[in-house]
Amino acid sequence: MPLPEKALIAQIRRMARPGKQGQTDRSVRPTRNAIFTGIGDDCAVLRLLPGKESRGREVLVTTDFTLEGIHFRRDWHPPESVGHRCLARGLSDIAAMGGEPVAAFLSIALPRDLPQAWVGRFVRSLISLGERFGVTLAGGDTAESPNGILADIIVIGTAPKGKAVLRSGAKPGDRIFVSGELGGSAAAVLQMRAEPKKKLNPRDYPRHFYPEPRVELGRILREKGLASAMIDTSDGLSTDLAHLCEESGVGAELESALIPRARVGKPAREVDLDVALHGGEDYELLFTVRPGARVPKQIAGLALTHIGVITRPRIILLRNLKGVAYQLEPRGWEHFRK
Amino acid sequence: MPLPEKALIAQIRRMARPGKQGQTDRSVRPTRNAIFTGIGDDCAVLRLLPGKESRGREVLVTTDFTLEGIHFRRDWHPPESVGHRCLARGLSDIAAMGGEPVAAFLSIALPRDLPQAWVGRFVRSLISLGERFGVTLAGGDTAESPNGILADIIVIGTAPKGKAVLRSGAKPGDRIFVSGELGGSAAAVLQMRAEPKKKLNPRDYPRHFYPEPRVELGRILREKGLASAMIDTSDGLSTDLAHLCEESGVGAELESALIPRARVGKPAREVDLDVALHGGEDYELLFTVRPGARVPKQIAGLALTHIGVITRPRIILLRNLKGVAYQLEPRGWEHFRK
Repeated sequence: MPLPEKALIAQIRRMARPGKQGQTDRSVRPTRNAIFTGIGDDCAVLRLLPGKESRGREVLVTTDFTLEGIHFRRDWHPPESVGHRCLARGLSDIAAMGGEPVAAFLSIALPRDLPQAWVGRFVRSLISLGERFGVTLAGGDTAESPNGILADIIVIGTAPKGKAVLRSGAKPGDRIFVSGELGGSAAAVLQMRAEPKKKLNPRDYPRHFYPEPRVELGRILREKGLASAMIDTSDGLSTDLAHLCEESGVGAELESALIPRARVGKPAREVDLDVALHGGEDYELLFTVRPGARVPKQIAGLALTHIGVITRPRIILLRNLKGVAYQLEPRGWEHFRK
Repeated sequence: MPLPEKALIAQIRRMARPGKQGQTDRSVRPTRNAIFTGIGDDCAVLRLLPGKESRGREVLVTTDFTLEGIHFRRDWHPPESVGHRCLARGLSDIAAMGGEPVAAFLSIALPRDLPQAWVGRFVRSLISLGERFGVTLAGGDTAESPNGILADIIVIGTAPKGKAVLRSGAKPGDRIFVSGELGGSAAAVLQMRAEPKKKLNPRDYPRHFYPEPRVELGRILREKGLASAMIDTSDGLSTDLAHLCEESGVGAELESALIPRARVGKPAREVDLDVALHGGEDYELLFTVRPGARVPKQIAGLALTHIGVITRPRIILLRNLKGVAYQLEPRGWEHFRK
């Protein structure tokens, strides 16, 4: 480990609370929603729900691993990208419930030989993404890793009582929408697999290296009561739609011509349909809308595309350009390995 | 991985909610404090704070890694012990704040070749410890591990607003107490290191294999307003007292004759003073009490031992049987490795 555990904690603490080193009193750093006793005690204390608001809100919790060799490779991903993606996964889960993120916790295990600079760049990027969403790094755990970098991110959020958008609310006849474009992240993985020695420029593949969690979109969809069910596309459209359908006890029919395919690389090219259907880690929002409701073309500057409809038979069909429907199997996103 | 990720989630879900397979509606499984939408959505939804109670409570969050080769060895620890210790670490952090645990989240990454039975025994033991404390396994993440079993436990609890017992509240003149006995867990590690091929009987070393988090004691100390500062002995007395002193900006003086040493093995023998001073993972509570306050000999059936006093100089001294005081360095608990 590059730093003894205590020094690492001190470093993260400094970065997480600029100008407030070493303090742990209850009044430090009030964020939008939380006042807390942060890093440096057995638990973080979150005052999630100040004043009158407290009565009507529920707490959302999500956890996600980021493991070297499974979710990233040190030779392909700069530490800033790893830190950003680590937190983005958790924020995206909060977005998929229509929630508002409040605080993050990072458990991190590091191999002995990891340069200290790597950790600094990783944590700084993670904290900086959090700040954009009013999310504070409020605690976590550190350990020595027997093999590779291991991180687990926990994000805590809130939603008004009974209003979090679940996966289980879709009904036959609901229309299916997706935000943004699909396949952009997987396209980068395919490119890196094809030419493992060549480093990609993150600017040509921003959705892979610096995905943008759709927190504002999720919140607006929940506030407007537009989404009957919602999930984020972390495993890929075919798999995430299967999750949503399973939890709702329904099926779906998609139109292949409607799937919004990402443009990636330099010069930019559109990804193949298969990549858009099965590629994971785009962190767009996939949601269903009741038949009568009007859906704007854009929300929060993000295109919303109508891609299909929820059906009663518990099967997912894809209709191609010729109008022929075939079954769409969930070809689960497999993370890449060394 | 022994089970595809989805099957593993389904298995954990069944175990976490006996008789409620596949359901995710909002009303499932009301526990003492929480109603939630559990495993099977992007986030868990916790209704931590039902009704009138909600206004006066804060949320506690703690996370702890359990890594193969760092925190346990598969050849030394049965899966039941690994699952128990994994959750006990988190519960003990809640106990150290005087909090009440509500829900747990388990992120777990498993190597491909791990037998399915191992996972079942691990999870069952973890859930069973949780049930004893009214704690539900409410979610988490699963992944394939590139090397060894990796678990991260998150425990969420609550405490009345402003009442959580921090590490930072000790003042010069406060007396120092510890619950139970010390060194029992480290003694097992020393024994296994000395004879790596010989399996220990967990019954002879219960504090190592099945440590008991001191949740009830912590809660009572908080309710009575007895503890001015508190921490659990996860890293060992010398290190954890140093943490408490550092956060409080004070020092301490201990009496070596007063340190309660565990009796372990068969036939039972008392551990050496060094093991009691520096051995970790006993998960007892170390707390300070204002000079005037009366401390019972026992709380919740657990002996409380007065071991020293908080001092103004920021140094920790140990006074030996001859009355000579020397500086006690925090000889941080180093987890054992392969």
